[in-house]
Amino acid sequence: MPVTTLQDLIALIGTEKVFSREDGKFDSNTFDSYGTDRTKVYPPNYQILLFPESTDDVAKIVKYAFENNISIVPSGGRTGYAGGAVAKNGEIVISLNKMNKVIDFDPFLGALHVQAGMITKDLHAQAEERGFYFPVDFAATGSSHIGGNIATNAGGVRVVRYGLIREWILGLTVVTGKGEIMRFNGEILKNNTGYDLKHLFIGSEGTLGIITETVVKLTKPPKDIRVVFLAVPEYKSILEIFKETHNFSLPMLAFEFLTDYCLEKVKEHLGVADPFQAPSKYYVLMEYEINEEGDEEKLFAILESITEKELITDGSIAQNSRQNQTFWKYREGISESLSLAHTVHKNDISLPLRNMEAFLTDMQSLLDANYSGFEIALFGHIGDGNLHLNIVKPKALSDKDFFQRCKSVDPEMFALIQKHKGSISAEHGIGLLKKEYLGYSRSEAEIATMKAIKQAFDPKNIMNPGKVLG
Amino acid sequence: MPVTTLQDLIALIGTEKVFSREDGKFDSNTFDSYGTDRTKVYPPNYQILLFPESTDDVAKIVKYAFENNISIVPSGGRTGYAGGAVAKNGEIVISLNKMNKVIDFDPFLGALHVQAGMITKDLHAQAEERGFYFPVDFAATGSSHIGGNIATNAGGVRVVRYGLIREWILGLTVVTGKGEIMRFNGEILKNNTGYDLKHLFIGSEGTLGIITETVVKLTKPPKDIRVVFLAVPEYKSILEIFKETHNFSLPMLAFEFLTDYCLEKVKEHLGVADPFQAPSKYYVLMEYEINEEGDEEKLFAILESITEKELITDGSIAQNSRQNQTFWKYREGISESLSLAHTVHKNDISLPLRNMEAFLTDMQSLLDANYSGFEIALFGHIGDGNLHLNIVKPKALSDKDFFQRCKSVDPEMFALIQKHKGSISAEHGIGLLKKEYLGYSRSEAEIATMKAIKQAFDPKNIMNPGKVLG
Repeated sequence: MPVTTLQDLIALIGTEKVFSREDGKFDSNTFDSYGTDRTKVYPPNYQILLFPESTDDVAKIVKYAFENNISIVPSGGRTGYAGGAVAKNGEIVISLNKMNKVIDFDPFLGALHVQAGMITKDLHAQAEERGFYFPVDFAATGSSHIGGNIATNAGGVRVVRYGLIREWILGLTVVTGKGEIMRFNGEILKNNTGYDLKHLFIGSEGTLGIITETVVKLTKPPKDIRVVFLAVPEYKSILEIFKETHNFSLPMLAFEFLTDYCLEKVKEHLGVADPFQAPSKYYVLMEYEINEEGDEEKLFAILESITEKELITDGSIAQNSRQNQTFWKYREGISESLSLAHTVHKNDISLPLRNMEAFLTDMQSLLDANYSGFEIALFGHIGDGNLHLNIVKPKALSDKDFFQRCKSVDPEMFALIQKHKGSISAEHGIGLLKKEYLGYSRSEAEIATMKAIKQAFDPKNIMNPGKVLG
Repeated sequence: MPVTTLQDLIALIGTEKVFSREDGKFDSNTFDSYGTDRTKVYPPNYQILLFPESTDDVAKIVKYAFENNISIVPSGGRTGYAGGAVAKNGEIVISLNKMNKVIDFDPFLGALHVQAGMITKDLHAQAEERGFYFPVDFAATGSSHIGGNIATNAGGVRVVRYGLIREWILGLTVVTGKGEIMRFNGEILKNNTGYDLKHLFIGSEGTLGIITETVVKLTKPPKDIRVVFLAVPEYKSILEIFKETHNFSLPMLAFEFLTDYCLEKVKEHLGVADPFQAPSKYYVLMEYEINEEGDEEKLFAILESITEKELITDGSIAQNSRQNQTFWKYREGISESLSLAHTVHKNDISLPLRNMEAFLTDMQSLLDANYSGFEIALFGHIGDGNLHLNIVKPKALSDKDFFQRCKSVDPEMFALIQKHKGSISAEHGIGLLKKEYLGYSRSEAEIATMKAIKQAFDPKNIMNPGKVLG
């Protein structure tokens, strides 16, 4: 990167917003951290880091980059799992960290206009201050940015009730790969005037442009919640339970599941007691809204109904918020319990609910036939058809050999997912890590069309090049 | 159109699916009707009408048309108001009428896979037979097709509860302008693998390709409903009422409004009594779900609360479903009452809720200054910010002069909508009738990008040419 680039950028947006690896204002680790995400597969390698404060700042930078053929990596909260925010080829990194302000608020509809670099938890707080609730929530909200959430179409634990973040976005302001500012939709609810470009940017992982502002729709929070924990002997009973309970008069917030294998690991790692008297092959955790008197009785009625139908062997309703948390620990402790005691290879996949059992049978056969000793730890947002499928390394195998072999498990698994009409990436996106497998979820014609669409927004391929479409 | 075209098409898909104006199988009016919608601005003019029965049939036709540079107009239920389904330049018309079958059903999630030519009301019935509910509903569902609803992103009266049809579409099968079949997403809920092309097709008005199949998500119906009718003296009170009531614990299904002018017209035309004791400038109709005992008391509490806050001067709750219907008549009878007694020029616009009053003030000034005697009949889905703004012809003016002058009102009104950050078409789309005004809702850069996207799906511009983008 020539010195003039740095000088030009300082002239454009001001010296206080421009940093370089050489200027020593950040230590090397901190500087690196702006150019990577939670994956550690590709080391960051870049020289210039910018902190714009407005959409206009971003437009100036991108226009300059466009004119000078310089590539850009947008940098949000960097909590991704697909390498989507890794700057490994000397790109300019544009951090949205300083774009964290509230711009406007509509108290009637409940619509909040913010800059895209606002931390998700801060957005929750801004909504709450105004008597509203932003319902998209997940583990990383303390550091993720709302813009990054949108660029990756984030989900979380309550998708069964609130959907993915896509459903909460009224408006987006973006800067395209040409440096043009586009303002999609603003705060209106209905706007049938041509193609909905906003939805193209949601989930585009920074490859079409940079999301700089958004108008999100808000709602009201549930008054209280209750968790129900169930022991379920057969997979088909999980389907029946979901059918019986997810369109119930009490709004369901979450429908999660784990296998006996996962429960064992959590018990070992956290040292907690088994919540059930007898073991079961599967466990389901349901969370419901409790808004008024009588709602808890409804919960008992649900439990009674599925017990009578012999869909469960055991089940209990949390008595208070403390017990809600205790039940959630069995689900939320899985990842950590597995990582600490084992080496695991993670996948985040989705399948039609009714095809899941057939897929799992095929998957088990595949492992039995070709990957002796490989075990599956299975858990996730089953109500959304979203499985976290972790393959656990056999003790006898070295880490290196294990990951080597996983490289051949993955495509075989993706082929099974394709056969059963699922997706190779439910929530985590494609980024760098899954791009060679995109063809298992999207056809050649679709990929060619996506490339043409990228070309329309980013004709010089400077926006997060090498991600998603390669 | 050369005779060989007809012979080629017969060879491709079979003689029983191919009709021409000359073959006399349809009378001229019926034949015409397949090549137009509810607008009567442009007369249909075309020679060949096809009735494919499968996605493969459609793909064969489009591939042939692509190779031979023949333009196509997709024809659904033809209930549109924007000229989107008019074949006026000798295009081939592809009717989806025979593509009306159920393909598959997932009883666990509640997902129904159907061909796109299914009439919307039939889809409602298919859902009901299976113990589910498809919530997108509006006046034209007895003849509109589900595919047409998707191609125009239809809304209706219960958007405030269920959103636009966009939110109910899991999967789409389309045939692009190159004759390629693309299957977006299937029935899964989460799929973060590149750009969401499905959302591009929703609202694309047949200009990117033909929607041939869809997987829709279903839900459960409300047990019962209650309508509340309110007399509201001031616009700002409507905003306050909406704020107080739409995130209430009882789910709101509709939030509609009308002005005193509209109520007068309905009373005159239908010969019904005034439901209120004293006149009011505005009236609001709210509809709520009633699912269990105690819900009606909640409704009384709402009414009491807004009465105490002096937001309304009068209000009543329907006592039964018959009275629900009576109240709805005051809202649903408006269009007919206006059309029968007056000549009107219709617009379907949307605005941010909080900007609506300022827009209306500007609009009234515009009419007072330049269009003396022009009156506004205003009603619509105010909870969605969606207004039906009808301009009523002064008695003294001829129809011809009136519509001539409306041609100059429109752009002036659209400029006001743009100023107040609204949309020139909330639900009806752009089609032929609004395309010259698209620039009031979308920027030049957006329109250029939309054209490039169309080019990617339809490089020869054979899919519904001349619509939306011109």
